[in-house]
Amino acid sequence: MKQYLKLDEWNIIEEGFNPENNEISESIFSLGNGFMGQRANFEEEYSGNSLQGSYIAGVYFPDKTRVGWWKNGYPEYFAKVLNSTNWIGINIVIDGESLNLGECEVKNFTRILHMKEGYLERAFNAILKNGKEIRVNSKRFISMARNEIGTIKYSISPINFDGCIEITPYLDGDIINKDSNYDEKFWLEVLKGVKPYEGYVMLKTKKLDFNICSYMRFDITKNGEKLNTSIDTFQKDKYISNTAKIDCCKNDEIVVYKYVANTSSRYYDIDTLREVTEDLSLQAQNAGFQTLFEEQVKAWDEKWTHSDIIIKGDVEAQQAIRFNIFQLNQTYTGQDERLNIGPKGFTGEKYGGSTYWDTEAYCLPFYLSTAEEKVSKNLLLYRYKQLDKAIENAEKLGFTNGSALYPMVTMNGEECHNEWEITFEEIHRNGAIAYGIYNYVNYTGDKSYLGEYGLDVLVGISRFWAQRVNFSTGKNKYVMLGVTGPNEYENNVNNNWYTNTIATWTLEYTIDVINYLKENDIKRFNELENKLNISPEELENWQHIIENMYYPEDKNLGVFLQQDGYMDKEQVLVKDLDSKHLPLNQKWSWDRILRSCFIKQADVLQGLYFLEDRYNIDTVKRNFEFYEPRTVHESSLSPCIHTILASKIGNVEKAYEMYLRTARLDLDNYNNDTCDGCHTTSMAGTWMAFVQGFGGLRVKNDKLILNPLIPDQWEGYSFKVMYRGSLLKVDVTSNNIDINNETDKEVLLSIYDKNYTIKGYETLNIRR
Amino acid sequence: MKQYLKLDEWNIIEEGFNPENNEISESIFSLGNGFMGQRANFEEEYSGNSLQGSYIAGVYFPDKTRVGWWKNGYPEYFAKVLNSTNWIGINIVIDGESLNLGECEVKNFTRILHMKEGYLERAFNAILKNGKEIRVNSKRFISMARNEIGTIKYSISPINFDGCIEITPYLDGDIINKDSNYDEKFWLEVLKGVKPYEGYVMLKTKKLDFNICSYMRFDITKNGEKLNTSIDTFQKDKYISNTAKIDCCKNDEIVVYKYVANTSSRYYDIDTLREVTEDLSLQAQNAGFQTLFEEQVKAWDEKWTHSDIIIKGDVEAQQAIRFNIFQLNQTYTGQDERLNIGPKGFTGEKYGGSTYWDTEAYCLPFYLSTAEEKVSKNLLLYRYKQLDKAIENAEKLGFTNGSALYPMVTMNGEECHNEWEITFEEIHRNGAIAYGIYNYVNYTGDKSYLGEYGLDVLVGISRFWAQRVNFSTGKNKYVMLGVTGPNEYENNVNNNWYTNTIATWTLEYTIDVINYLKENDIKRFNELENKLNISPEELENWQHIIENMYYPEDKNLGVFLQQDGYMDKEQVLVKDLDSKHLPLNQKWSWDRILRSCFIKQADVLQGLYFLEDRYNIDTVKRNFEFYEPRTVHESSLSPCIHTILASKIGNVEKAYEMYLRTARLDLDNYNNDTCDGCHTTSMAGTWMAFVQGFGGLRVKNDKLILNPLIPDQWEGYSFKVMYRGSLLKVDVTSNNIDINNETDKEVLLSIYDKNYTIKGYETLNIRR
Repeated sequence: MKQYLKLDEWNIIEEGFNPENNEISESIFSLGNGFMGQRANFEEEYSGNSLQGSYIAGVYFPDKTRVGWWKNGYPEYFAKVLNSTNWIGINIVIDGESLNLGECEVKNFTRILHMKEGYLERAFNAILKNGKEIRVNSKRFISMARNEIGTIKYSISPINFDGCIEITPYLDGDIINKDSNYDEKFWLEVLKGVKPYEGYVMLKTKKLDFNICSYMRFDITKNGEKLNTSIDTFQKDKYISNTAKIDCCKNDEIVVYKYVANTSSRYYDIDTLREVTEDLSLQAQNAGFQTLFEEQVKAWDEKWTHSDIIIKGDVEAQQAIRFNIFQLNQTYTGQDERLNIGPKGFTGEKYGGSTYWDTEAYCLPFYLSTAEEKVSKNLLLYRYKQLDKAIENAEKLGFTNGSALYPMVTMNGEECHNEWEITFEEIHRNGAIAYGIYNYVNYTGDKSYLGEYGLDVLVGISRFWAQRVNFSTGKNKYVMLGVTGPNEYENNVNNNWYTNTIATWTLEYTIDVINYLKENDIKRFNELENKLNISPEELENWQHIIENMYYPEDKNLGVFLQQDGYMDKEQVLVKDLDSKHLPLNQKWSWDRILRSCFIKQADVLQGLYFLEDRYNIDTVKRNFEFYEPRTVHESSLSPCIHTILASKIGNVEKAYEMYLRTARLDLDNYNNDTCDGCHTTSMAGTWMAFVQGFGGLRVKNDKLILNPLIPDQWEGYSFKVMYRGSLLKVDVTSNNIDINNETDKEVLLSIYDKNYTIKGYETLNIRR
Repeated sequence: MKQYLKLDEWNIIEEGFNPENNEISESIFSLGNGFMGQRANFEEEYSGNSLQGSYIAGVYFPDKTRVGWWKNGYPEYFAKVLNSTNWIGINIVIDGESLNLGECEVKNFTRILHMKEGYLERAFNAILKNGKEIRVNSKRFISMARNEIGTIKYSISPINFDGCIEITPYLDGDIINKDSNYDEKFWLEVLKGVKPYEGYVMLKTKKLDFNICSYMRFDITKNGEKLNTSIDTFQKDKYISNTAKIDCCKNDEIVVYKYVANTSSRYYDIDTLREVTEDLSLQAQNAGFQTLFEEQVKAWDEKWTHSDIIIKGDVEAQQAIRFNIFQLNQTYTGQDERLNIGPKGFTGEKYGGSTYWDTEAYCLPFYLSTAEEKVSKNLLLYRYKQLDKAIENAEKLGFTNGSALYPMVTMNGEECHNEWEITFEEIHRNGAIAYGIYNYVNYTGDKSYLGEYGLDVLVGISRFWAQRVNFSTGKNKYVMLGVTGPNEYENNVNNNWYTNTIATWTLEYTIDVINYLKENDIKRFNELENKLNISPEELENWQHIIENMYYPEDKNLGVFLQQDGYMDKEQVLVKDLDSKHLPLNQKWSWDRILRSCFIKQADVLQGLYFLEDRYNIDTVKRNFEFYEPRTVHESSLSPCIHTILASKIGNVEKAYEMYLRTARLDLDNYNNDTCDGCHTTSMAGTWMAFVQGFGGLRVKNDKLILNPLIPDQWEGYSFKVMYRGSLLKVDVTSNNIDINNETDKEVLLSIYDKNYTIKGYETLNIRR
């Protein structure tokens, strides 16, 4: 754990230059707008540790799978979102010496992520080896208002000299992914061009023919006056640049305004891509930095209006929750149903920018409550459109009749992951995708989704479950063998309680949806019955499985068991483990982890969270109190579920402890891996922990439910919730709850099991 | 399955040239002498499919591990015996056109492996594109009498022309392993030199500094007269050659005699390696082809005297068993305890030429019964000398106090394998290594081995088992979690019956050995007690584990269970499986294999074989009849154990069926993978199936036991057995058993439970 950032309610602040933290800061200070994103690399040359990273949403490469020992069924490739053209570059040379913070004395360094307004600022004084000192201030943002536009205002002042400053804005497409499996480069040059004050590079991927184009333009001012200095142009493979040489005197201020449009063939025809990009960059330049900046502030203000959380009396927690919300809004905006949310967003290469079950299990609630319905719906449509591939994937493993197994990791619906115990066995992901449909429909009330899209997916998944179980004559029950649950510290187990549970839940929900459609839209049901070949026999079979599924439990302890044989393990608690053994994933060999009773992430508890209405509070309590002391939370997705359940059983202290563990994960580099990128999907878990945990937010039977509680450490908090067209602001203190309806739409809700109606623009006050 | 070889009692014969079989033949016709070996590549240029392969025993390279997803505890490298200098090369050019069977018309092609005399012969007529026809006959062997020497007699006759034949004997060290993980070359040149009629290449490995040197010399005769033709010499990186141009007339016979010495720094100082090699090659040349050949015939005659098996009335079976015995004798001669037996011997690169549990479980019995005691003892000493590394390996996984885990795959004692379910979990190998000690001492009666070497290893392994189990409070028994048994079609299971059984057996045997030493060699015992820190408490703990171990079983069926939960699987028999699903390892995804009840290789049965005295015949029968129909034998090591147990329970028909499956595995390319190399270690299983299955050979309480039976398909058979200084020839027909003592040493033995004594040079006859 490394805490070097300053606490502040709205900003992330780094003061002083510590090169050893640079890759961590590059992740934390990342920028994005859902269509592209970028690590907080320096504009000028930098020879220290850095992971240069710019990413264009959905532009990926099928990198040849690397594996020690091939198993039948492995995919041929792992799709990764490509590190693409470095468009921020501005090299600076002072009287022949290059500005490079790795090689000069740096003073007064600050890096600030302005989360309210959505921009990155960096300022420093640099004393070069030749003794010359300059002051630099750089402001940069990726426009939330214009999907393709990134802008930089880069200001330089000589402090102790008169002389020549050489400024070289460039585009560099000769980029390699750090995580390329075989050190291959993935980009080919298509076109490039350069003339004074502008230039472009157009590239395509070696496979799949994704084209991207970056077009840069820039202006230079000296003490506020625009310059028309003569420009040297230069080009080489996948690279173009302009160089301006500017004579200046002490205390002059030279400012470069760089405007770049980044486009891809996902949105524009390849034939017109260059022109479109040229045009977009020209529009940006014509608008100018100030206008673009104002658009940016306005766009972020709207985001915050819907999603801000305020915590009073705890600046650490305040900063953290806003950071999480900020990064989520930078990663996914829900405008394109072909996009999804990589575990690290646009902040690094790890996990290839691909889609995991994280989306349905952890991210969906955030977007349901903080963005318009379309945003969550697009997350669901992503899977709907990949149903055919999920069916192919299941066929590859021997399943038939339209069974669908959604991939563990994917870009376009095809499986990318290649560890048998995960690829083939961590099939609970299928359940989360079904649960996502339930969650969306339950929250939004949009039941039309079921007939239009939902049932196709549910039937495919249900068929998979029905074929994946087998009847054990010994147990006289259905069993599910050879699975890996959410807790990946067990592999290839039999009867994982969570997986068995989510499987029969899927079957039940699918039957419910069929019955709903039969009753409410018989025409559509008949179409689907015909298209999907649903027969009464099949539904009977599902019902038989539902009624005869085996669930491992320990009746003496009154707890569900992770899987068969869990109680054969030596039962040790995390608190009794010498801290030298932690984290297990760094200190123990894999087999030792597997044999131990220690749990990586909520597993039985995940099921109790998803399906809470099925289990009484005592059951939840007994299981929580059994598993929580055995859980090491070495998945970033674990503490959030624990916060919610701890809140539910009234253990606010534990809820707060678990909440802190998730909220500042990246800001404090808790797992010592933030240098690889931020844990973007677990940030959604943080939001969920807050709003569903402390806020107690639920939707049941078309009613919004709140059960707020407040940790002793806080004076108060407030959060925003969008719900079926209304926007509520919930203010909580230790003895007071105010709920302000910020729209004209009346809302029915239940607070502490009591029903209320809040009319438009009214505030409900409840004394606790 | 591909049968293209002719049946013959003593020879393997290929008639007619079929390039598509070439890589299979290269494996089958391989030569070796325990110190080096070689695939049956052509001497002259060949552009068709071929895996060029020459291997020097024990000269390996630590090739960087390739893995998709790293797990803690994986080794950094996989050691592989290197493909090394091609020393057989003789290029032939006829009037400017190269002889290349890939590019000319080939007639009268034969390839014969003369197993009795130990040489390879190849003959053919080739009509080149220029219309010129030649007749070639090549004889080649690797000397069993001189560890470093290989010799070729290569004869060429023009059939339809007078002209110039250019002959280029060469050495080529610029070799790459086909299975290099990252396409790296592993060899560096150290020295080379060439002059007329001789030349050498000395190489070293890029890591570990193994040096090898090849020195070639040759003579050329024309119609029996030695020529002194002038020679052009040539050299390039890691390569030297001589070229002789010989004018000849139709029907002249040109013969090249090539003598090569291949040495390594494992046996000679690097400083003198070149000289030694030069000298060895000179000695070979001075001896001449005929003398070397006579030595070869004599050496093989001795091998056959000890190891031949004769089968009457079944030439297919006769050829097969001799082929297996021949390859085993080519692979390991037992002169160097640092060497061992790779799964493919010297016949291919697969499995890296490394040591597996195959050695103790399948190979040891062959060498115990067909070679002097030292040979088997050296196989045991190999592990004894690697005990320190086995302790380090266990420490890496978290074990303490001298626990030893022998590696799954190794060259020098360090683990090479990197699949967690095997590397960390297939720990039953440890039991086989302990069992090897028992087997050796039981067979040879050499109890001195126990105090000198055996106990150190047994204590290390026992400590591993004692730490690897844990006490299950639920079961009130010791359990062993997270293992993979010999049946690799299950991974990460709990309480694999075989592993639990071999573990407690090891503990018992170790205690027995301790008690034996206490009673018979208290001085040595005290030394060891002190050195190994053996305490009464530790032995009590072992005893507690022995008495309280859990063994899964199905009491209704009266069978031991593969592992916990086996009966939850859908119970299907192999015979009821549509043949389109077989072999499972090619047709099914890995998870489907894991979930199924199908067994790759004998697992419970392996335990019943090793520890047969513990179980009555009904138990063996019930388990055999339960598991055999569920076993797909997709490991080459499975049918042999089935043959032995089927014989034991009197099911001769099944024994014969299983025997055929193992005996001609490579000759008939049963698994369609002989092109990769022969299944050398499973050949030892074939021998074991024969002698322990049909012959019923055992040693119990210092008495040799035979219980011969004979399949209906055979008129009779005989085999040789060396036993404690005697050599017996056992002749079996349907109504008669003759046992001839070929030594002067009296032998006590039991046949069909009746005791006999055979005096020196006497024959015992038993009517059945």
